[in-house]
Amino acid sequence: MRSEHQQDLINRLKTIEGHVRGVQRMVDSHAYCIDLLKQTQAIQQSLAKLDSIILAEHLRTCVTTAIRSDEISERERVVNELLQVFEKLH
Amino acid sequence: MRSEHQQDLINRLKTIEGHVRGVQRMVDSHAYCIDLLKQTQAIQQSLAKLDSIILAEHLRTCVTTAIRSDEISERERVVNELLQVFEKLH
Amino acid sequence: MRSEHQQDLINRLKTIEGHVRGVQRMVDSHAYCIDLLKQTQAIQQSLAKLDSIILAEHLRTCVTTAIRSDEISERERVVNELLQVFEKLH
Amino acid sequence: MRSEHQQDLINRLKTIEGHVRGVQRMVDSHAYCIDLLKQTQAIQQSLAKLDSIILAEHLRTCVTTAIRSDEISERERVVNELLQVFEKLH
Repeated sequence: MRSEHQQDLINRLKTIEGHVRGVQRMVDSHAYCIDLLKQTQAIQQSLAKLDSIILAEHLRTCVTTAIRSDEISERERVVNELLQVFEKLH
Repeated sequence: MRSEHQQDLINRLKTIEGHVRGVQRMVDSHAYCIDLLKQTQAIQQSLAKLDSIILAEHLRTCVTTAIRSDEISERERVVNELLQVFEKLH
Repeated sequence: MRSEHQQDLINRLKTIEGHVRGVQRMVDSHAYCIDLLKQTQAIQQSLAKLDSIILAEHLRTCVTTAIRSDEISERERVVNELLQVFEKLH
Repeated sequence: MRSEHQQDLINRLKTIEGHVRGVQRMVDSHAYCIDLLKQTQAIQQSLAKLDSIILAEHLRTCVTTAIRSDEISERERVVNELLQVFEKLH
């Protein structure tokens, strides 16, 4: 993970962490269930954005290095890893 | 939200909060991207479980009260809210 | 399912059926993989829209009837069914 | 798409096509809404499996060829295409 992305990820994770604490306060103050669900869905979207940044960085670094190598096993490894990530999403 | 569920939700949210901090440490220590994605997907699953608990409680309290009322507008309100939650998930 | 929705669902299903046949032709003519994925994702979205129509109709008929009944077991049945649909989506 | 996968995809698409027709018959015969939703979710899972096969084939052919080429623009193209597929899923 190149450093310019590293700090961005950490900032996003800190925002998500704060958002989770916010939902705790909502539960504490008996917020309406649908409003809670709107917040957890917003957190899911922040995590999805985070995933995209991680995947983009991964494709441009580790996957590119492995596929450009002459190690066929390395290519298969990164392809299988990507498929697992993809299948978990479906 | 009945109190027995309230504490359960808060405990789950605190676990998610800790999990998010854990991912921050992984990013800090240059963890492999795929390992990061496995953790964010685990957090998504925890949030999904949280959503189910919130929705179950909502269906059994607010939705039941509104649908059993004689206010047709109240019934339509809770139905439309549920559809919005459902559509955001798809 | 009230008849005005029934015909709408059947028309949508026939469109989806035609779309699936269209993807078969694309595979036959060696279309680019990403173009295939764009079509299968479009079919998924059509199915998601179909699900919303079915769920809206279900909430306004069967769920409302069951929840307004005095049979607590009927209320629990429709609530549990909705939760299963919801959890499969997550 | 290599031919051994092509026939597999076409067979799966024909099965999905038949499944969609089956749901039409269920709607025609006033099947219970939840049973309809179970079938559309089963079709979604078949499409998800189809997507995995297409993506696996794409990663092992087009993506590998592009990333092993010396055309940086080709590498960026296949990476961006993968990210779009990934983001649509989230």
